Amino acid sequence: MSEFVSICDVGPRDGLQIAKTRMTTDDKVKWIASLYAAGIPEVEVGSYVPPRVIPQLSDTAEIVSRVLAEVPGLVVQALAPNLRGAQNAFNGGVHKISMPISVSEGHSKANLNRTPADSIAMMKDVMDWMKAQDRHVPVIVGASTAFGCSIDGIVTTKQTVALCKGLADAGVEHIMLADTVGYAHPAQVKEVIRAVRSEIGPVVYGLHMHDTCGLGIANCLVGVEEGIRAFDTCLAGLGGCPYAPGASGNVVTEDLVFMLESMGFRTGIDLEKLFVSRDILHAGLPAEPLSGQLAKAKIPPTFRKAA
Amino acid sequence: MSEFVSICDVGPRDGLQIAKTRMTTDDKVKWIASLYAAGIPEVEVGSYVPPRVIPQLSDTAEIVSRVLAEVPGLVVQALAPNLRGAQNAFNGGVHKISMPISVSEGHSKANLNRTPADSIAMMKDVMDWMKAQDRHVPVIVGASTAFGCSIDGIVTTKQTVALCKGLADAGVEHIMLADTVGYAHPAQVKEVIRAVRSEIGPVVYGLHMHDTCGLGIANCLVGVEEGIRAFDTCLAGLGGCPYAPGASGNVVTEDLVFMLESMGFRTGIDLEKLFVSRDILHAGLPAEPLSGQLAKAKIPPTFRKAA
Repeated sequence: MSEFVSICDVGPRDGLQIAKTRMTTDDKVKWIASLYAAGIPEVEVGSYVPPRVIPQLSDTAEIVSRVLAEVPGLVVQALAPNLRGAQNAFNGGVHKISMPISVSEGHSKANLNRTPADSIAMMKDVMDWMKAQDRHVPVIVGASTAFGCSIDGIVTTKQTVALCKGLADAGVEHIMLADTVGYAHPAQVKEVIRAVRSEIGPVVYGLHMHDTCGLGIANCLVGVEEGIRAFDTCLAGLGGCPYAPGASGNVVTEDLVFMLESMGFRTGIDLEKLFVSRDILHAGLPAEPLSGQLAKAKIPPTFRKAA
Repeated sequence: MSEFVSICDVGPRDGLQIAKTRMTTDDKVKWIASLYAAGIPEVEVGSYVPPRVIPQLSDTAEIVSRVLAEVPGLVVQALAPNLRGAQNAFNGGVHKISMPISVSEGHSKANLNRTPADSIAMMKDVMDWMKAQDRHVPVIVGASTAFGCSIDGIVTTKQTVALCKGLADAGVEHIMLADTVGYAHPAQVKEVIRAVRSEIGPVVYGLHMHDTCGLGIANCLVGVEEGIRAFDTCLAGLGGCPYAPGASGNVVTEDLVFMLESMGFRTGIDLEKLFVSRDILHAGLPAEPLSGQLAKAKIPPTFRKAA
């Protein structure tokens, strides 16, 4: 049996943040259901931020309760920016909570309005609260700007290691290294994974890469080679970062799954069904351009799914 | 000093083959000159095929003589399909000749109208003729469909090794492993490079990858990791393959150079000047869509050129 790689499609959260048009709640539920029908085990379905901050995601609580009821089996993840958000997500019944914590000061202040040190203190409160509950809900911290920042520029490996160490010491059990603005390159990805892992071991959980400069898939390849088995992706590479003009969205789910399955990793995902999901996404958000090479080229006749 | 990686931009040949509109000879010369001005050391400027086969490239002889005179310093490469083409290229004064030889029977017959075995016999004649001349012009054989074929489907590593071994035995000194239709995946690229190299050693010269399924850059990364130091690329990812509907062009020069320089490999290429070259290409071929992530996002502030 091939080794399993876990894909979390973050499109309904990360992909919609800067979309110019709104997607209805019904269309979001259809899209999420189609992702699960294609075999995607986990979906980040929204964000517990105040509605005025990201109007696109103002229906997150409703989305969560609907997909919990209507898409049984799906691992439902939502983003929370702080303790209150995490509590709301928990009370909403999500299975997993993602929390972005910036490595760089500039992004931290612009995106979260606090310093990285403040964030570590906050995460201690979050983890203490979560551990006091009678239901276990894993918290995945996204170490944002772990490979570079559109505001501060270079982020050193040392900075990323220090933040991740602080988070692990505060009780965080899962960290996604996030190339929020898409500046990472393969040699850096290898260096950062090894350096962080040497400090906090298996707390290094996954990679969340953007394809801004065209290296998203290559950076994920390095992750796989380094033993990473969890990736955030986005159907059709939807999205982008408000702090990186011209930046592309997350790594394209279809293209990464194609690579992983071709290489003999098992994702449980059916590529043809992902194309159906693209059609559903397009119907719900017709003005948004869809990226991805595989969908243009179609699945080559040489493709064999991992067993 | 960083290690050098050699880029050959094959756009004026591979990129134009299926372009819907014609580019004038003057515009081609401007484009080629701008590539060299950006630091690209080698350009494949055309193809010595009969003009009726690829009308876009019917001015190849004129292009060769003009760029030899007007772009001093550029290594001028042209494609030749057979002995007569190679002789014409040689007599035209090119510095390097590329010759495509298909691994798969189906592509060989469709593209070259002969079997792979015929091609090996032909290459012996070509190499014998070349070695009898008083000027040394390297011949680079592109082992086409080395990773899969849109006609025959799967191409086994064994087939590719056998063809490359036959070519080396026939006197061929440089082989580019070519993913003509863009079906390769990273594990396969590693396997094929290792298998071919174990048979013919340093005759394995470079990689020529297409980005059909989104894995072009990741496949090149594997090449770099395996010690490959020569790549064919295409500014703006121009082109495609007439035998792979929906297929994209070659790996995008800008994106690959960005990756290599970021990783500490020296290419001698200036990315900002490549963007100027894109403008010149676009002016000469306005109907053709340009690909590439870096040009959309611009060079990130974290980028440092290799020293």
